[in-house]
Amino acid sequence: MSSETISLKQVRIDDAFWTPYVERVRQVVIPYQWEALNDRVPGAEPSHALRNFRIAAGLESGSFGGFVFQDSDVYKWLEAVGYALATRPDPELERKADEAIDLIAAAQQPDGYLNTYFTIREPGKRWTNLTDCHELYCAGHLIEAAVAYHRATGKRKLLDVACRFADHIDATFGPNPGQIRGYDGHQEIELALVKLYEATGEERYLRLAAFFIDERGREPFFFREEWEKRGRTSHWRAGPSGPPDLVYHQSHRPVREQTEAVGHAVRAVYMYTAMADLARRLGDESLQSACRTLWRSIVSRRMYITGGIGSTAHGEAFTFDYDLPNDTVYSETCASIGLVFFAQRMLQIEPVREYADIMERALYNAVIAGMSLDGKRYFYVNPLEVWPEASERNPSRAHVKPVRQPWYGCACCPPNLARLIASLGSYIYTVSPADDTIYAHLYIGGEAEIPLSGGPVTLRMVSGLPWDGNVRLTVHPAENRERPFTLALRLPEWCDVAAASLRAGGERLAIEPLLRNGYIRVHRTWRPGDTVELELPMPVRLMEARPEVRANAGKVAITRGPLVYCLEETDNGRPLSAIAIPRDAALVPRRDPEALNGVTFLEGPGYVTGTEGWNGDLLYRPVDAAAARLDRKPVTVRAVPYALWGNREPGEMTVWIRALEI
Amino acid sequence: MSSETISLKQVRIDDAFWTPYVERVRQVVIPYQWEALNDRVPGAEPSHALRNFRIAAGLESGSFGGFVFQDSDVYKWLEAVGYALATRPDPELERKADEAIDLIAAAQQPDGYLNTYFTIREPGKRWTNLTDCHELYCAGHLIEAAVAYHRATGKRKLLDVACRFADHIDATFGPNPGQIRGYDGHQEIELALVKLYEATGEERYLRLAAFFIDERGREPFFFREEWEKRGRTSHWRAGPSGPPDLVYHQSHRPVREQTEAVGHAVRAVYMYTAMADLARRLGDESLQSACRTLWRSIVSRRMYITGGIGSTAHGEAFTFDYDLPNDTVYSETCASIGLVFFAQRMLQIEPVREYADIMERALYNAVIAGMSLDGKRYFYVNPLEVWPEASERNPSRAHVKPVRQPWYGCACCPPNLARLIASLGSYIYTVSPADDTIYAHLYIGGEAEIPLSGGPVTLRMVSGLPWDGNVRLTVHPAENRERPFTLALRLPEWCDVAAASLRAGGERLAIEPLLRNGYIRVHRTWRPGDTVELELPMPVRLMEARPEVRANAGKVAITRGPLVYCLEETDNGRPLSAIAIPRDAALVPRRDPEALNGVTFLEGPGYVTGTEGWNGDLLYRPVDAAAARLDRKPVTVRAVPYALWGNREPGEMTVWIRALEI
Repeated sequence: MSSETISLKQVRIDDAFWTPYVERVRQVVIPYQWEALNDRVPGAEPSHALRNFRIAAGLESGSFGGFVFQDSDVYKWLEAVGYALATRPDPELERKADEAIDLIAAAQQPDGYLNTYFTIREPGKRWTNLTDCHELYCAGHLIEAAVAYHRATGKRKLLDVACRFADHIDATFGPNPGQIRGYDGHQEIELALVKLYEATGEERYLRLAAFFIDERGREPFFFREEWEKRGRTSHWRAGPSGPPDLVYHQSHRPVREQTEAVGHAVRAVYMYTAMADLARRLGDESLQSACRTLWRSIVSRRMYITGGIGSTAHGEAFTFDYDLPNDTVYSETCASIGLVFFAQRMLQIEPVREYADIMERALYNAVIAGMSLDGKRYFYVNPLEVWPEASERNPSRAHVKPVRQPWYGCACCPPNLARLIASLGSYIYTVSPADDTIYAHLYIGGEAEIPLSGGPVTLRMVSGLPWDGNVRLTVHPAENRERPFTLALRLPEWCDVAAASLRAGGERLAIEPLLRNGYIRVHRTWRPGDTVELELPMPVRLMEARPEVRANAGKVAITRGPLVYCLEETDNGRPLSAIAIPRDAALVPRRDPEALNGVTFLEGPGYVTGTEGWNGDLLYRPVDAAAARLDRKPVTVRAVPYALWGNREPGEMTVWIRALEI
Repeated sequence: MSSETISLKQVRIDDAFWTPYVERVRQVVIPYQWEALNDRVPGAEPSHALRNFRIAAGLESGSFGGFVFQDSDVYKWLEAVGYALATRPDPELERKADEAIDLIAAAQQPDGYLNTYFTIREPGKRWTNLTDCHELYCAGHLIEAAVAYHRATGKRKLLDVACRFADHIDATFGPNPGQIRGYDGHQEIELALVKLYEATGEERYLRLAAFFIDERGREPFFFREEWEKRGRTSHWRAGPSGPPDLVYHQSHRPVREQTEAVGHAVRAVYMYTAMADLARRLGDESLQSACRTLWRSIVSRRMYITGGIGSTAHGEAFTFDYDLPNDTVYSETCASIGLVFFAQRMLQIEPVREYADIMERALYNAVIAGMSLDGKRYFYVNPLEVWPEASERNPSRAHVKPVRQPWYGCACCPPNLARLIASLGSYIYTVSPADDTIYAHLYIGGEAEIPLSGGPVTLRMVSGLPWDGNVRLTVHPAENRERPFTLALRLPEWCDVAAASLRAGGERLAIEPLLRNGYIRVHRTWRPGDTVELELPMPVRLMEARPEVRANAGKVAITRGPLVYCLEETDNGRPLSAIAIPRDAALVPRRDPEALNGVTFLEGPGYVTGTEGWNGDLLYRPVDAAAARLDRKPVTVRAVPYALWGNREPGEMTVWIRALEI
């Protein structure tokens, strides 16, 4: 039973955990990024992004600066601004956005084409290197921004720019003579065109998205042919270059025949997102089935417990089943954001708990770990194990930064985080109009006005997540009329059904009989002010990985509710590898309202192996049981939510902890 | 008390373990390499090495082929041939060598210069890129070959070529006006010049070696200046290039001020070898002290338990203290060979057991693991943990090959192994003429004629190593006269002094009172036919690494005598990470004369965690003590010597094994 998201304008977040993130994006990240796009951040390398538009528009002279995909930084920023304005007006911010939009419109070419790199630097080379040059990727981000901004403000200027460009693309690409029968190296246009279809009702955009998806990976391989035609060159290096890596671009076989998540992780999940969109919009069973297979490949075999994906820095890519190294990991913030997109689309196809479980896991862990508490620094790579000296002195781990970094030259993750957090309200609920069912997927407090067949219903949610599992919903049908409908509440995977409890309208309900696909379906005639109280006990759980995951053998990870915890050196000393906890260790929550903007630490018994018994010159020695017992000392281990690591003194960190057998 | 090596001509190896290796080098490796140098190996990429000499000599036309240091392959082969001929004449082999030597002599330039790359391709560019171009490195290998061949055959042709080139170098390099005040990017000439001094008595060569060592790392930095002068280019890539990495080349500070083993591991140990040579020859205390510091840096903080060195593929280099990843390791075969050289030179300075312990460890483990039992395939990288799929599908581990490879384009390791094994006889004993003491460092069976002040003494050794610790020496003084001298027998680190026993001339001796620096000094008047029987019990020892070695936390390695053992998939199934052994597991030796040319396996109790209890879709699950006990099954674990891994079916391998606490 397919369901729809709620317009961001109808949702207001008011949540002890999330409101600070949303506010930081609004107050810190978006203004900072505007300065960065304008090259006004002292000490940071210039973005060139807005300057490129001025040059392309003929308003300034100069040469193109930044990466070939630099335009997308402006678009992602505008998309985040659109989401921010949808939930709260801000005339000054809207003025800045309009200023950027005027520039973008001015840079658009008479035929609708829009890309500052090609306009400024290689005007004759449009669409000659789709493999490397991100033209359609940038177009996709333009479209997403345009849709978001139009929805928020009602203004059409950017939407018209986007439609003109989309029309130009629609004329340029396709199976007909004279058209390019190709697709982009970095998927993004596909999901964006679905949004443009949703915003405009123009079916050509949906068909164009389907064309790009259907064409991908067919033989003869477009990227190979394009490379031959170009004279075997690459955008990324001078001189002749080898053929494009088809697997890296998920273009090695038709998407319906792809069974494993491979290649560049961000591109992969952006593509799967579009596939799920199209499967739902077109009722395409084979595409839906491919989505399920690829989803399974990720979550059952290629995903870190934090919701991170991508096991190698080489190509920022997936590798193979159960290869999840904690120290040489990639787990790019953007990839987990894309996993949230994919999960959301799968949820819309069918409300099955697992999609929301993974969405929640990625969101509360790998995604927000990407940003510092002050909103000013970012992780692109989200390791599960950090040894700062190794990051500095072992080049195999140089990509793993032990502290968050300021805005990069390649600034994909910060604006991506901004647009996700600014639109967080649209991930909480979906509604199925066919059977008047509201699905609550995430327990994030606030208010939402949800359209049902008999008129809107306002839901007010108060949630203790992630610190406790107490959730209270209050129902306010429009016009204060009582109304029959179904409220389907997700029972998270982390909560035992026997432990959970539910009261609706003051009445205690048995959960098990109401459960379907992990959702507790409460159907009743709701009166104004009716409440639903859900108690989701949140015991500390030690988790283990399948034995096939070599990196985690003999280790456990600490979780509680949606949060994965980790150990940091600042709480536990070093090396963290010297710490072990009993496999049945009972860790207890300790709330500290002062630390880390209010955090619940977990504490429990462990052991640390010291070096007291070691001669300083000795690197190896025979095991001596007596000495081992002397060197192993009981300690209290303290774990901190993974999302919040790296916000205190720099040091070691580990998610997986050695377990003592019991 | 300094001691001298024994001439290879005076040593004959006859040892159940080593003779097959020596014979394989003689019968397989040296003939195969001759074919390879002549570009006659079907299917292998051509070496070009001898052809380059023909072209440089004007005997053939064509262009230079192979790496800039391709000449050294011929020299290393000739050096190995020299060692082989020293122990057994082989007229046919000598004829081939003379043929190669004629070519080399013909390629030498009138002024003594000799390098086919520069002669053929860049005649005007001699000595303009010492950082990258290995000119002095190749010269060093020429000298080593010349000395070995002269010692074996008495023929002077190659030695004369080497001296002419060394004289040319001596005139070209130095502190005087018009001379180049520089040194080579790849150390090798330094240790070679010491050998040339030893062979010829010409002190200029020793002084030149000292010049290169003393000059290295002084400011202004030679490699930087050279790079500026060259126009900021590199041999390795077109266009402008960044400044040379001084640390990679151990040229970041004067060698006496270097306290940590850094940079390219092979270059480092070749340099330390020369430093130790010079320290001994010149009685240079400050150099000796630097050698001790650098030795300590390696063996106490930067060495794998196998005697492997180099923790990263990036620059084939050392990283930092306690950074010894088992899976992304480098541990190049050549680097461990260089560590054997360094250990041997330190032993010559002072007979302290640790140097011989490490020499033995590297030799019996990391070094010979580099070659397959049939002598036809080689490991360049010697990992301590292998997951074949990861080598294939995770680019961070692509350098770790799960099976030995045939001759490479960059063929450093195979000829290096050949020359070491062919000269193995010179590592067993040293003699200190000042106090008439013979040191036995390695227990490798055979016969050696050792010069003492009163005339030579022949020692015959029968050794059970590495399979048992029973060693028997028989003394035969020349002319059958009884003779007083000291026999100093190393008590290996792996043998408890209380467990060892010694009989000399039929008399049982207490060991402890005779021990000095780890050597049992037996001084007596030896009669012809006197025997020494040393029993070195060799219990299985589980070893642990210091807690600072993150990669080995909670793990043990299995050793017995000089051998490090490992688990292979072929004996134990997969994944090997699912296996754990009790920290006090009693493993027992099981001799199998059929397997692997005769091997002693070690077997003992362990546990394996199965996947029976796992839902196929589940990647993580809460720890369930009951389920864990059901999934953990007792098994018999079988370990194989690390040196012999990869000689059966390809599969996983691990040295470090999870330990169950006791």
